[in-house]
This record gives sequence, C-alpha cells and structure tokens, in this order.
Amino acid sequence: MISIAVLGYGTVGSGVVEVLSKNQESINKKAGEEIHLKYVLDLREFPGSPIEDILTHDFEQILNDDEVKVIAEVMGGIEPAYTFVKSALVKGKSVVTSNKELVAKHGAELLEIAKDKNINFMFEASVGGGIPIIRPLNQSLTADEIYEITGILNGTTNFILSKMMSEEGLSFDTVLKEAQDKGYAERNPEADVEGHDACRKIAILASLAFGMHVDYEDIYTEGITNISDKDMAYAKKLGLDIKLLATCKKIDDKVYAMVAPMLIDNEHPLSHVHGVFNAILVKGNVIGEVMFYGKGAGKLPTASAVVTDIVDAIKHLGRNIMSFWSTKKMELMSIDEVKFGYLVVAKTDFFPASKDSVLKIFGDVNFVKLNDYEEEIAFVTTKSSEKDLQNKLRIFERQPSILQIESAIRVG
Amino acid sequence: MISIAVLGYGTVGSGVVEVLSKNQESINKKAGEEIHLKYVLDLREFPGSPIEDILTHDFEQILNDDEVKVIAEVMGGIEPAYTFVKSALVKGKSVVTSNKELVAKHGAELLEIAKDKNINFMFEASVGGGIPIIRPLNQSLTADEIYEITGILNGTTNFILSKMMSEEGLSFDTVLKEAQDKGYAERNPEADVEGHDACRKIAILASLAFGMHVDYEDIYTEGITNISDKDMAYAKKLGLDIKLLATCKKIDDKVYAMVAPMLIDNEHPLSHVHGVFNAILVKGNVIGEVMFYGKGAGKLPTASAVVTDIVDAIKHLGRNIMSFWSTKKMELMSIDEVKFGYLVVAKTDFFPASKDSVLKIFGDVNFVKLNDYEEEIAFVTTKSSEKDLQNKLRIFERQPSILQIESAIRVG
Repeated sequence: MISIAVLGYGTVGSGVVEVLSKNQESINKKAGEEIHLKYVLDLREFPGSPIEDILTHDFEQILNDDEVKVIAEVMGGIEPAYTFVKSALVKGKSVVTSNKELVAKHGAELLEIAKDKNINFMFEASVGGGIPIIRPLNQSLTADEIYEITGILNGTTNFILSKMMSEEGLSFDTVLKEAQDKGYAERNPEADVEGHDACRKIAILASLAFGMHVDYEDIYTEGITNISDKDMAYAKKLGLDIKLLATCKKIDDKVYAMVAPMLIDNEHPLSHVHGVFNAILVKGNVIGEVMFYGKGAGKLPTASAVVTDIVDAIKHLGRNIMSFWSTKKMELMSIDEVKFGYLVVAKTDFFPASKDSVLKIFGDVNFVKLNDYEEEIAFVTTKSSEKDLQNKLRIFERQPSILQIESAIRVG
Repeated sequence: MISIAVLGYGTVGSGVVEVLSKNQESINKKAGEEIHLKYVLDLREFPGSPIEDILTHDFEQILNDDEVKVIAEVMGGIEPAYTFVKSALVKGKSVVTSNKELVAKHGAELLEIAKDKNINFMFEASVGGGIPIIRPLNQSLTADEIYEITGILNGTTNFILSKMMSEEGLSFDTVLKEAQDKGYAERNPEADVEGHDACRKIAILASLAFGMHVDYEDIYTEGITNISDKDMAYAKKLGLDIKLLATCKKIDDKVYAMVAPMLIDNEHPLSHVHGVFNAILVKGNVIGEVMFYGKGAGKLPTASAVVTDIVDAIKHLGRNIMSFWSTKKMELMSIDEVKFGYLVVAKTDFFPASKDSVLKIFGDVNFVKLNDYEEEIAFVTTKSSEKDLQNKLRIFERQPSILQIESAIRVG
C-alpha cells in the first residue's frame, strides 16, 4: 500500500479524488500497489464531503508523514505551491502537478532536485489537460530530434475563435460573454485571451523538447482581443481559419517561440481543432509530424492526467525517469528574422491611391475584397521576415490615402 | 555500451540502421548508453552497403552472443520471425518488433515470456507506424477505463478513399493503380484493401486495451473494394465522408470489434484524416476522447517507432514494463446486436413502388437523390441493430420493383 496526498480541493483536486475512487480497481492494478489517499490539504472546510475525514489544513503534517510517498499538487499559482513542492521533493517524496505556472517558472530546478533524490517530478496535466504530451515527448519520440512544436494550447480562446468563425458577425466581446456564461472562460479572462496561458505551456514544451530552460517572459505573445468579425470574414473569403497558435521552432541552431493568432488553411492539421479542444503538432527529423488531440482542460480530463502521473510515480519510486532540462536559460532568437505572410486590412479615403501604395511598398500581394465597398483595402503579402514586414507596415501607415491599419494578422 | 542486432534489412530494417546513425548522439543520450549495432541479419548480400561488415546470415550467431541485449525484428511475417523472437526472449534478450502479424497472433505468449524473464517485448511500430499509440495506451491513460478505440489504421485504403472523395468520378480500380504507381499500395494489395491489415492492428489495440487476447480471425472485416464513385457522390450529397474504420468497443461487459467502411460526418475527428495519414481515437471513462495522428507507414516513421522501442528496452534491461494481456482468448460479441444506420442504394424498375417498399420495410428514412434519374433509389435508415437491418435488406431485395441492391454502407 502506498499513501498519497492531494494539495488543493478545487476543481482539479476534487476531480483527482473522484477519479481515484471511480476507477480504483483498475488504477491499483496498473500501479501494482493499493493507493491510499491519506490527506487532502485545503484551507477551506468541506463538511459532508467524501474527504471530510482526511482533510488537513497543515502541510507540515503531510510533509512529516513518512508513509506519504507521492504528492499531487493541484492548487495552482506560484506560492505556496512552489514552497510545498520543493520541500516535498527535498524530503524525498515524488510530486505530480497540474500547475503550469509552477512548471514554467521553476521546472528546471524541481526536476533537478527530483533527479538528485532519485524520485520524480511529473506534470502531464500542466499542458493539454488530459492529452498525453509530456510523457510522449519524454518517452516516445526518443529516436527523433524534435525541431518544431505547434499547438492550440488554450481551449477558451479556441472556443471563442471557432465560434466567431462559424457564426458570422459575432464580435469578440459577445462570444467572450457566452464563453463566460458557459464556464469556458474565467470571469477575469486576461490570462487566456491575452495568450499568457498558452505562453506558459509552450515554454514548458520548448524546455522539454530542446533541453534548456525557456523563460516564458522571453516569448513573443499576442492575444486574440483584437480579432474582429471582419477579420473572420476576410479569413473565410481566403479559405483560411484563424487560430491562436503557440509555437517553438528550431532554425539552424537557434530556437524561436511565439504565441499569436495565425491564419492557417484547411490542409493544416490544427485547422480542424474546434471549440474547447486542444491539439499539439510535433515535428521530428525522422517521424515527420504527429499530432495529439483532446480536451485541453476540464475537471475530469485534467484529473485523468494527474492520476496517470500518480500511477507512474508509484511505479517508479526510487527511480528517476523524467528527462530534465538544464537550469541554464536558453537565449531565444528574436522573431524579427522569422518569415511570415500578413493579412493586412486598412481604412482608406482613396482606394486607387491606396492600391498603388500597397503595390509599391509590398510588391506582389493577393488583394481580397468582401464587397464593393471602397473605403477599405485588404491584401495578403508574400512571405518575408517579421522585421521587413513591420517596417513596410510603418511606411504604409504613413501613406496619405491610408487612414488607419485595422488588422495585421500573420499567415502560418 | 549495449550491443543490439537488427533482423531483416528491408525497408524498415534499413530505416532503423539509418535512424540509429543519423541521430546517434541524441539517441545514445536518451538511452543513457552507447548503442552498438553489432549484427544485421538478412539472407541477402548487400555489398558496398553500410552494413556490409556486420551482416550475418546466421541467427544462431546473434542468439549465442551474450553481448547482444536487444534485438529488433523487422522481417515481417510469422515465420521465421516467431521462432527467432521466441528463442531470443527465452535467452533473456529483449525484443522490439514492427511485425503486426506476429504480435496479433503470438503477442500474448511473447509478452508472457518477456515478463517471466524480466525483460521486454515491445511493438510500438506494429500499429500506426510512427504514431505513439502502444506506449500511451500502456503508460499514459492509466487513470482511465478505456471503452472504445476507433482508428484509421491503414494508409493505403485511406489514400484511395480520400482520392475517390476529393476527385469526382474516379473508380476504385483507377485510384488503386495510382496508389500502386506511387508506391502507396503493394502490387498485391489484398491485405490492405480487404481490411486484413487494419484487422490485425485493431486486434492488437483491443488486446492491449481490454487485457485479453483478441483473435483477429474473430473480427468482422469488410474491405473497400466495393466502394464505388457513386457511393462517394451519395456521401458527398449527405455531407459525409467514407472511411475504413477499425473499431473495438465495450458495451456493458462485452466487446465487439470490426473493420468496415463507414460514413462519418465532418464533426467526427477522424473525418479530417486524409491521404496516407493514420489516426487513432481512444475513448476513456474519465478523459473523454483523445486522438493520435501521424504517418501510419513509411520507412522512417516506422523506423522511428522501432528505435524508440530500442531506447526504451535499453533503459529497462532487467525490468519488465509492458502491460500484458492474458493468453485467454476473448469471446467477442457478435456485431448482430450493434446498432448502425445504413446508406442503401438500389436499382429499381419502378421508382414509386420502390419508395413505398422502403417506407414499408425501413420505416422512417432519409431519401437522397443525386439527380432526377428514377432508376435508382437511395436512402439512409435510422439506427437499428445489424441483425434487424440485414433482415430488412433481405426482404427489400426481394421486392418486385427492386432489381438489385448496389450498396449498403454503415453510418458511424
């Protein structure tokens, strides 16, 4: 029998307790041990709940109980999670977590402690909810040198963009409100809609794939709050879809990483990922591309990944199996040199002149029109470096016939 | 340093040698050992090839070399593969294989020997080529009780069906010929187009998911040779796609498995899997659904999976980590009780009478017409048991106005 503890009885924590009870028999069989949930830590009280008798408010009680071999941290946030997890690892207890902030910020250090202590720090649930991605990157795909990972890593923004694409004329704000009403978006949606959540997740995947600590603060991040129903109409006209993509990619010996809304065509495997689903496309120099798809959030899918880690941690007590990444920070390459095309939409007070300016500044472009309305000009540029295109946009903006650039969205 | 041997220097075998050399440094790092390819076994000679010096025609030489700890069997077919693999395992050497026939037929026995000897028998490459699916089923998703696996497991047939769907009027034979010219289909395509290949793969997945030996000979298997360009036109008219799906599913306490062309709508995650790509959808009672997507065949993707197994076998010398399934054969439930809808297309010499017959026999159906042509009647039935629908089809066939049933394709 192996005793475990769960830190935090919120959505994920109660899901973990539910899954451990629901599939108790098959989980014990796979772990090769009877799993005994000895403590749940939470500051709140839960009278009448199934964990009433094992609830504790005192982390020290768990830390100092030598019977507890594995701890699941599902509180979220940096503190007190970081202090708890670190002290548990130092005490020789394996830790599994769903906490992407913690892994993105302190993953390298925590992995190193686990390695020193010959135990494990696991975080399958921190990226892609229930989708197996950390373990496949760590244990499958070992024949390959991974050179790119691109994913739809945030279900809230994918729900919003999918909805705006499928139902004409809906504004970002209207759909955000619907997502909030349905519980798909937080009351404070900033972390999702500004891309911060996806940014932390791609930082974790990049660190794992390239073996060095990628600091999420170094990652160019753009959210979806500026995407309008008109952008969606142009995308549709072009036969494209707009998705919030999180990418890290090796070019020669350098790696860049970014989070931004991108136009992709329907040949792109990620273009068919709709609603709250997530998917992660991994490219290797031997395997070509593989994609992992599923629910990226939600109580039970996330709990499924946490419990999978608990099982694996129990199977590998006293044996470190996680690849770790160096605490040395990776110098990311600037996206300035990365090549994109751009869809540009601008207001004009003289269409013919604006068209001449486009041709003069951007050269060969693909013009696109929604209707005969001549107060707006829209076009897709050929691929060029980010730096080059940003320069051209600045010049374009200053043309007398151009009133305002309304959108500039990269084409993937 | 760990010595290994490769049995068979065909497409996959030469791919394995290529991958081991190409990514040598990163592979050794992940294995935690320097991998030394000591022998390649093949009956042929390969003068001037990179393996000239390590080529042997004598399996005994490999078997009796105590330095060889891991053997990759990539010859295919049951014999001599079975004899070689079994004797290697009995000798205490771990074996990895890409051989789906071998795993489907003798997997239970070989897994048991490996367990007894505390070594491993691994077969990631036997299903889905490079797509990680065996390892995720074995090591991820352990929190879940899997109740369904449905996949597009054969790239040849998916290429043919995708092409017939995207280009109107192409017959099966024309596209098969193109697939053969492109090297996507064998000169003798029977194993692919009759569904036998997919059948062996779903037998492996079902055995792994449900823990008992599923005999592929018990699996209802229908190929795609009867799918016509007209079926494709009807499918398109209905907004559906035709895919060769391999399924195993638990209903109450019983499991059924089948391989058959199915009509699916574009909400189905597998509907966007085109060309030679494969994908496997796994459903669990906690995680909901997850999908794994990638190239299901080909030299390098398959070799990638074989080398991943080699790395894992080396990391786990002296420690068995594969879940195994019981050698006891699972009694599959007959598909008679499984419910499907059917698209039925029939020739008629009197349309109004045939329509009356449809309504009388099948009740509420959805009629579908390609044009005003009245010598053909087509409709989609509501869902009913296979047995019930087969009975109704037999009655329908005998109606005076019905000349011939041309197609009857299940709706998934």
